[in-house]
Amino acid sequence: MEITHIEHIGIAVRSIEEQLPYYEDVLGLKCYNIETVADQKVKTAFFMVGQTKIELLEPTSDESTIAKFMEKRGEGIHHIAYATKNINNVLSELEAKGVRLIDTRARGGAEGLSIAFLHPKSTGSVLTELCEHPE
Amino acid sequence: MEITHIEHIGIAVRSIEEQLPYYEDVLGLKCYNIETVADQKVKTAFFMVGQTKIELLEPTSDESTIAKFMEKRGEGIHHIAYATKNINNVLSELEAKGVRLIDTRARGGAEGLSIAFLHPKSTGSVLTELCEHPE
Repeated sequence: MEITHIEHIGIAVRSIEEQLPYYEDVLGLKCYNIETVADQKVKTAFFMVGQTKIELLEPTSDESTIAKFMEKRGEGIHHIAYATKNINNVLSELEAKGVRLIDTRARGGAEGLSIAFLHPKSTGSVLTELCEHPE
Repeated sequence: MEITHIEHIGIAVRSIEEQLPYYEDVLGLKCYNIETVADQKVKTAFFMVGQTKIELLEPTSDESTIAKFMEKRGEGIHHIAYATKNINNVLSELEAKGVRLIDTRARGGAEGLSIAFLHPKSTGSVLTELCEHPE
């Protein structure tokens, strides 16, 4: 696998609206997109920082994995997403190496990316996403 | 404050040695530096991913803040570090805005950086570091 950069860092928040003043007025970042990802039951807000996005994740339902994460751990950093090419080939390669996968094939994520999660059991407890940009 | 990029993502681990196969053989990253930061009681391992470093943090003492973090939350993502210029001016500016600071003046961190932490109470529970490269 060739990772080109960190595509984004996902941060679980109770309310995007309540967090905007910190990201915009304190850190001086600009929210350029707010998008709801229905099948993940989250609303997302994006800020660009160099090559990498900060992605705030607000649950739209108590059934969202983000709501469940916050029940246990509160608000905070949820996952790291690495950008790669040929994501489905990469997933096959990782599976062959014995890496546990949450998604064995890529699925659609926010901003038109193809995404897949690795299982924290195989990543030192860091929830890890791989992303491929559409082209 | 002008943030140029995400300088690093800090990840708390029990053992750098045990995590190296994941970062090197699975993700294909290369560990280019291992360094002990005595006053923070941690051993650190660095991997470059585009503009951003992954920094693994292994406690060298039970008194380390990283050891205490893992007692509560286990291994996982510990903090985000943003790169900025004129860090001491930025800290004064943030303090004037009412942001709670852990470090009111920058101190020396790994790799020769000047660093300061903001308090999670002011950052939506995300432990946040600011860094300035020496020049």
